Amino acid sequence: MFIDLRSDTVTKPSDKMRQAMFDAAVGDDVYGEDPTVRELEERAAAILGKEAALFVTSGTQGNQVAILAQARAGEEMILEASSHIFLYEAAAHAAFAGVQTHTIHGRKGAMDPEAVRQAIRTKNIHHPRTSLICLENTHNKAGGTVVPVENMKAIYEIAQAHQVPVHLDGARLFNAAVAAGRPVADFTRYVDTVQVCLSKGLGAPIGSLVAGSHEFIEVARHWRKRLGGGLRQVGVIAAPGLLALTENVERLAEDHAHAKILAQGIAEIKGIEIDLDTVETNIVIFDIKGTGLDEEQFLAALKEEGVIATDFGPCLIRFVTHMMLSEADVRAAIEKVANVVRRAQGVA
Amino acid sequence: MFIDLRSDTVTKPSDKMRQAMFDAAVGDDVYGEDPTVRELEERAAAILGKEAALFVTSGTQGNQVAILAQARAGEEMILEASSHIFLYEAAAHAAFAGVQTHTIHGRKGAMDPEAVRQAIRTKNIHHPRTSLICLENTHNKAGGTVVPVENMKAIYEIAQAHQVPVHLDGARLFNAAVAAGRPVADFTRYVDTVQVCLSKGLGAPIGSLVAGSHEFIEVARHWRKRLGGGLRQVGVIAAPGLLALTENVERLAEDHAHAKILAQGIAEIKGIEIDLDTVETNIVIFDIKGTGLDEEQFLAALKEEGVIATDFGPCLIRFVTHMMLSEADVRAAIEKVANVVRRAQGVA
Amino acid sequence: MFIDLRSDTVTKPSDKMRQAMFDAAVGDDVYGEDPTVRELEERAAAILGKEAALFVTSGTQGNQVAILAQARAGEEMILEASSHIFLYEAAAHAAFAGVQTHTIHGRKGAMDPEAVRQAIRTKNIHHPRTSLICLENTHNKAGGTVVPVENMKAIYEIAQAHQVPVHLDGARLFNAAVAAGRPVADFTRYVDTVQVCLSKGLGAPIGSLVAGSHEFIEVARHWRKRLGGGLRQVGVIAAPGLLALTENVERLAEDHAHAKILAQGIAEIKGIEIDLDTVETNIVIFDIKGTGLDEEQFLAALKEEGVIATDFGPCLIRFVTHMMLSEADVRAAIEKVANVVRRAQGVA
Amino acid sequence: MFIDLRSDTVTKPSDKMRQAMFDAAVGDDVYGEDPTVRELEERAAAILGKEAALFVTSGTQGNQVAILAQARAGEEMILEASSHIFLYEAAAHAAFAGVQTHTIHGRKGAMDPEAVRQAIRTKNIHHPRTSLICLENTHNKAGGTVVPVENMKAIYEIAQAHQVPVHLDGARLFNAAVAAGRPVADFTRYVDTVQVCLSKGLGAPIGSLVAGSHEFIEVARHWRKRLGGGLRQVGVIAAPGLLALTENVERLAEDHAHAKILAQGIAEIKGIEIDLDTVETNIVIFDIKGTGLDEEQFLAALKEEGVIATDFGPCLIRFVTHMMLSEADVRAAIEKVANVVRRAQGVA
Repeated sequence: MFIDLRSDTVTKPSDKMRQAMFDAAVGDDVYGEDPTVRELEERAAAILGKEAALFVTSGTQGNQVAILAQARAGEEMILEASSHIFLYEAAAHAAFAGVQTHTIHGRKGAMDPEAVRQAIRTKNIHHPRTSLICLENTHNKAGGTVVPVENMKAIYEIAQAHQVPVHLDGARLFNAAVAAGRPVADFTRYVDTVQVCLSKGLGAPIGSLVAGSHEFIEVARHWRKRLGGGLRQVGVIAAPGLLALTENVERLAEDHAHAKILAQGIAEIKGIEIDLDTVETNIVIFDIKGTGLDEEQFLAALKEEGVIATDFGPCLIRFVTHMMLSEADVRAAIEKVANVVRRAQGVA
Repeated sequence: MFIDLRSDTVTKPSDKMRQAMFDAAVGDDVYGEDPTVRELEERAAAILGKEAALFVTSGTQGNQVAILAQARAGEEMILEASSHIFLYEAAAHAAFAGVQTHTIHGRKGAMDPEAVRQAIRTKNIHHPRTSLICLENTHNKAGGTVVPVENMKAIYEIAQAHQVPVHLDGARLFNAAVAAGRPVADFTRYVDTVQVCLSKGLGAPIGSLVAGSHEFIEVARHWRKRLGGGLRQVGVIAAPGLLALTENVERLAEDHAHAKILAQGIAEIKGIEIDLDTVETNIVIFDIKGTGLDEEQFLAALKEEGVIATDFGPCLIRFVTHMMLSEADVRAAIEKVANVVRRAQGVA
Repeated sequence: MFIDLRSDTVTKPSDKMRQAMFDAAVGDDVYGEDPTVRELEERAAAILGKEAALFVTSGTQGNQVAILAQARAGEEMILEASSHIFLYEAAAHAAFAGVQTHTIHGRKGAMDPEAVRQAIRTKNIHHPRTSLICLENTHNKAGGTVVPVENMKAIYEIAQAHQVPVHLDGARLFNAAVAAGRPVADFTRYVDTVQVCLSKGLGAPIGSLVAGSHEFIEVARHWRKRLGGGLRQVGVIAAPGLLALTENVERLAEDHAHAKILAQGIAEIKGIEIDLDTVETNIVIFDIKGTGLDEEQFLAALKEEGVIATDFGPCLIRFVTHMMLSEADVRAAIEKVANVVRRAQGVA
Repeated sequence: MFIDLRSDTVTKPSDKMRQAMFDAAVGDDVYGEDPTVRELEERAAAILGKEAALFVTSGTQGNQVAILAQARAGEEMILEASSHIFLYEAAAHAAFAGVQTHTIHGRKGAMDPEAVRQAIRTKNIHHPRTSLICLENTHNKAGGTVVPVENMKAIYEIAQAHQVPVHLDGARLFNAAVAAGRPVADFTRYVDTVQVCLSKGLGAPIGSLVAGSHEFIEVARHWRKRLGGGLRQVGVIAAPGLLALTENVERLAEDHAHAKILAQGIAEIKGIEIDLDTVETNIVIFDIKGTGLDEEQFLAALKEEGVIATDFGPCLIRFVTHMMLSEADVRAAIEKVANVVRRAQGVA
């Protein structure tokens, strides 16, 4: 068995979740008759402070219905240059919604509100209309950083002034809330629509939710159908989702503590560089240039030691902590990184 | 409790399926590590006689990835004028793939091969290229009719001659196979790609499969990701899907027998017209013009009697039999239809 | 020099038109500063009875901006099954607008209003919304037939009741108006938007116009820019367009008279079948099955005789009359067809 | 009459061009029968060093057919962050081709080849495939700067190694060639496809060309048809295009000389800031922050003085020189700018 630091998506459902699947009351959700998914959607809407919510099969599907429902072909959306939607959704929004991405380089995942303001297009026959702004919180590529509520508020006010809706890719929003010690609704107050994942740190096997106004959800539901996300007896996966949402939020603090231990541990290893300021939640990104290994070599050597992780670009490795890892696992991982680097430097 | 004749999608998972979910071995399928979904995909590929298969969350998602993987924007696909893809997928292929639908009116769901030949476009700057032919078997809107293997073969040969791939919407292909007393591979031999549903008559809570060549599946997997169908611990829903595929196929014969009883029973009710020739599987479509009621009135009156069904267009009602209905339910339903019509005629 | 019956698009600009080009006042139309195109657009709007008009470079571009401005991805438009938009615009609307085509087989180019009513989708999560109805008048593939104003009115009333806009592909609308002896505005009263060509029977070298409300034109202008139809000193082609619109309409009667002579002449040739009822304007479509020649052979033999025409599908040939053909040309063409058929029958 | 420094698109056709229109041999280009456009396309292909060329109605249309022909939905193209395609084509490529833009900030319009290399996506299910790289030369927004042949070569070699085609938006490529004192083919050697405009500095009223391999042009022709760019007697506008290409290239040197005079003149005005290094061709961009006026105020005041120009973003004004301006006009413009600034500073 590997110590799996690749992602919090690898978490497997607990026995309690499996029992919930076994017991779930179900119905045909295309007819609106699955009581469990309805309960989940209502619960999520309440937590997120929105009128309504919709179950979707993945974070990508949630982001895509939000884009499809709020922007149309030939328009433009503003988003951070290393955001998940831009980098990792295989350009689905371009293919399906026909929307151009206008990227802004952020700082620790947060875009400068003034840069957002300048990126909003004026009315001109050569311009696409700006029809959406997308935020991401926590920001994966920036290292799981928490985008401050104040930054979100500043952008939202600019967006409102220009009548541009704001969508939040909150795949790991609960991590942000726990790290900030604030309810998620403090963050979602400053967006029109939001997507949150149940299958990452919260541990459900499958599923995400999008939330917004009733009108938005009605349109999003139609797009979800087109994407093939209209399911039947969805209660069997909504049931563990409910547990994820109600029982697994507070414990994210533990993952964050583990990430800090991990980060501090490897920061001391010669050849590894890491900005400890970015380690605010359950993600640890570090630079291995100084080890003499490239990403592929590093990951292969680490795997031999029994630890698996993710290549995050030239010289960058990502570790993610999650509920299936104990403090002992994390401390063992530090040791194994040290072994890899030591051997590499011996060889080099 | 209603006698629910709306669709075979309303079937709920059995206790055995729920136990399978509870016990399922899982992993992160985006990393290709879920053993249960892999087993399901391999089993499906073998049954369907194709190199590989891919789990998708719905029939619509399966059809859409097949279209996206085989046709591109500005091209055309040929399909039957009352097919599910044309009527009931909310024009997803137009929105996402940019493909034009060229419809041909079939007979009992089968298109005339000669009409297909003539619909294939010649090379001309004014024409879109014909890049796909879609079949549907059984054909829902035609009454669950079985499109004969010979018809599929004839169309496939024309398609091959013009180098146009053929896709089969086999949401209810197992019904066709059981009704024809032939293996499904006899049908899929004459198509390049196929989609089959686990959540209709086969009783799984969620899921479908697409199958085809390795090359097709690789491209389809990329499109599935864009549609938001890349899931994590999908084994929990693949497990009941495996049971659906291995244990629930032969029993479809019972649903077909029930449909015949139902059809013959209501055929004798004055005011109802039904073409008994179309009742080959588990679908019964009938005309209520002679009852003096419109669809809405008929369905409302029937609901009061404890039976629910589907409005299938002007004066048309659809009944679908499935594993949750006994022969007694079906015979009761006949009585209740008779009551509705009797009362309607008394009033009129 | 061939007698060119392929299309009225082959008409070359007259010396008067060339002089108009030479003299045209021009400006940069992207800045709205070309006086000649503005005059043309205003003149066209007035003739068509609409608030505003927009110059486009072709009929296809005019139809496409009308679709793009009025329908969005995942919606559906209803149109005749052999209409130009469906058959001959290379599925541009599917590629660019993402709109599904819902075709209805018409009679002499006219759709049954009741069939249109039934094709309009009800609100249902499986359905695309019906967002546009397209008519074509005269109807090319039906033989240049005039769709009666009464038919257009009946469809428009249904469309209005369902809040669906109607677009008219009036590439040859002036032929319809002249044949019916009514102003074009009698036809355009029953549509929201219309496209007319200057480069077919009216003889301009390049150009079409779309017309509708001010609001529509503003949106259409933005889509025209995306299609690459935002031009600079467009006055040089708007000038002959103005002549086409003001001086070449009434003379279409002559083309119609020539088409009748042509149709009646070839109707008498044994082996050729033609429905004289369809010859209402400048198009003559006939069946050559009885000649023993296929289209390719027939056209090749005819070309050797000095006449060129168009293959219009299996066994069908299309002749189009236009301002560059005299009555003598038309009578000569009849002779040459007779020669071809006589020789074919001698050989066969 | 204003001194019009807004753009070189405002140039009006000369009498010689008008005479060429009057005299042009024409035919129906949809049938490939217009001799003048064929001559223009062959001439352009030869000059650009490509197998074939295609006439299009605008630079936008040329760029869009190049994108549509070389990239498909869900793929990505790399281009400079202030390029015309990204900023000023109303996101047409997103709407029509479904392609995501991956922008890189350049220096004087040139992207760092190493940044391009890193932006090319690796094969991964989360990634779009990189299917096109777009360059722009001269680079409008950077001030009409010439992207060095060496930079193009370096990017091309990277692109070749990754099998990614390169397209050049050469709307003002002849300006680059004249400024560099090299034939245009020196630049186009390092791209697969190129678009050049006839209607900017070269003075034709309408039109651009795209060039590439025979195979590319065939596909591009089909997309041009969909965009509505398939024209009829196009020779009337191809004729002045031929003159533009053969007679108006060398004289661009004069526009460049005028731009230098203009730039040096206004550089001396207190409150205006300009980087003289960027003034390599016929574009002059300067910053007016120091004048105390915003763009709108500055342009309004300048218009009162009889000079019109373009707002190019916050505090930026663009001047463009062209064949309709003499040295005297340019010197007068300097005076008028000085007046505006003087008055503004008096007021402030």
